[in-house]
Amino acid sequence: MLDKCGTGFMLCDVNLALHSAFLKESKAQPYLLAISGGRDSVALLHALLKNGYRNLTLCHLNHELRGEESDKDAAFVISLGEKHHLDSEIESVHVARLMQENGESMELAARNARRNFFSACAIKLNCPRVLLAHHADDQTETILFNLLRGSGGLKGMDFQSTHQIKKRDLTFIRPLLHITRKDINEYISTHQIDYREDTTNAEPIATRNRLRNEAIPLLENIMGRDLSSSLQRATDICQANEQGLKQILQEQQLEDPQGRLFSPKIKELPLALQYMALQDYLKKQSISDISTDLLERCLSLLEDTSRAKINLPKGLYFRRKEKRLFVDSSPS
Amino acid sequence: MLDKCGTGFMLCDVNLALHSAFLKESKAQPYLLAISGGRDSVALLHALLKNGYRNLTLCHLNHELRGEESDKDAAFVISLGEKHHLDSEIESVHVARLMQENGESMELAARNARRNFFSACAIKLNCPRVLLAHHADDQTETILFNLLRGSGGLKGMDFQSTHQIKKRDLTFIRPLLHITRKDINEYISTHQIDYREDTTNAEPIATRNRLRNEAIPLLENIMGRDLSSSLQRATDICQANEQGLKQILQEQQLEDPQGRLFSPKIKELPLALQYMALQDYLKKQSISDISTDLLERCLSLLEDTSRAKINLPKGLYFRRKEKRLFVDSSPS
Repeated sequence: MLDKCGTGFMLCDVNLALHSAFLKESKAQPYLLAISGGRDSVALLHALLKNGYRNLTLCHLNHELRGEESDKDAAFVISLGEKHHLDSEIESVHVARLMQENGESMELAARNARRNFFSACAIKLNCPRVLLAHHADDQTETILFNLLRGSGGLKGMDFQSTHQIKKRDLTFIRPLLHITRKDINEYISTHQIDYREDTTNAEPIATRNRLRNEAIPLLENIMGRDLSSSLQRATDICQANEQGLKQILQEQQLEDPQGRLFSPKIKELPLALQYMALQDYLKKQSISDISTDLLERCLSLLEDTSRAKINLPKGLYFRRKEKRLFVDSSPS
Repeated sequence: MLDKCGTGFMLCDVNLALHSAFLKESKAQPYLLAISGGRDSVALLHALLKNGYRNLTLCHLNHELRGEESDKDAAFVISLGEKHHLDSEIESVHVARLMQENGESMELAARNARRNFFSACAIKLNCPRVLLAHHADDQTETILFNLLRGSGGLKGMDFQSTHQIKKRDLTFIRPLLHITRKDINEYISTHQIDYREDTTNAEPIATRNRLRNEAIPLLENIMGRDLSSSLQRATDICQANEQGLKQILQEQQLEDPQGRLFSPKIKELPLALQYMALQDYLKKQSISDISTDLLERCLSLLEDTSRAKINLPKGLYFRRKEKRLFVDSSPS
């Protein structure tokens, strides 16, 4: 049975199955819903209401990147809130100015602005949970983008992730992460849901747009299949392996009472764990910009007895002394 | 200094740096060189001779897929052998017939035929080492192909790998795996090396050709960078993680004296290791077609006390009994 849902959300046959782990949570629990007014976030709102989630606050950040169109997006979100008797939090930020002021890319400036906005909403409303409308095609694009730009492996978005923002935990939840864009479009069209076209929210980034519009369709055509499930499965395996190694690493006693790495213990570990252990240690010492190349040079101290010191950034040294490996600021 | 190497291999300034691990091996050691007569394998031959490797046998399998052209490839390889005073092993196989007879794809039939040929050469000449001319662009294509077709992660070719063929170990070595096609082309043109154009050796597979000719150039254009290093690094990390977990798994005592898995031990492991341990166990029990889904169902016996049996292929069962997990052929 099809019905017209444009003027009010009613039960229809076509469903958007929200993530099963999300459905296990209480529906009475309050959530912030990040909403641009575009297809995905409006479909998520519709599906949430359809599933009985009513304790929602619509959170919309006007990026002021598309002039009047941006203002219309905000007005549309306000009208959605009124229609469904939901509170709205609407805020404006001049992303272009932030880019100039902080010397950031548009992507980074917009992302930081959104995080700060959600964090402020969370504090104001005492609700540290934000729902995001990312879907399976966004995920494919993210996995491919991370892989191709060389960020070191298969990494996508998590269904749920908690970040410290301004010293408070904020949890982002993506109930549509397994749903394809095609299914969302079908849902939107079946239910005749109103949405704002092209509310790209400060993400008209050439690279990602070209991946989405040119590369992924070509790859799917060549392979004769949807990429989403193969990329997600491969990413799950890689993430599980990394997680497994991290868990094993936590069970090891690698440091002496002074917090220095005990080198005979490190040498016993598989190579992948040696890298992880060293990376963790350097991070704890506030060393940033840790390249694989740097890790390799530091680990060479385990074998190479002719050297006992590796130069680190910011005038620091990584040193081997009495079977201990540690960061040191003194050059001799 | 440029010179004309078409009529004989001489020292030139442009080099093809063979893999460092390969250069550590003795140059007097005999090798089989898999040679199609195309750019890559002829460049490898040239670089080997230039680096003082003389104990080479040229091994060429005529796939009989391109009629007269295939015969000319074989004749070209014979002439190369004569010119450089190297022995040649030339064999013919009718790949199209093998495809029909064994119901195999062209890729699989050609690959099996090549393996059998190299294996026969190895036995005849008592030389279990085959040099292959795969390069960094082949590797990029392989990694991408494996990832996109959903073979479960980032997997490429190894610089060196040993396979059991007809109960004998055969080692494949790829001394050009880090060299780009561009560098090979430059080397070929600088040294004016003769080669046979389009000797695709039974690999004109639409999917891989389209990845090579359409997808990879598009992705490199979008990302503004060469994909080779980012994909190789990501693959190295994933492989090292998997290797690390395998190493840790080998140190565990998971089986009881009867060779059944001791479930409290399995439960203690990180999830990734539970999967690996179970997969290893099922492989040892000659269970093939092990899907992630099947592993998941088998592992559910660790927690789900309402069930004690999972159906396996070929009328077998995976069973939990007295804290042991094992494969059983009896249904009750």
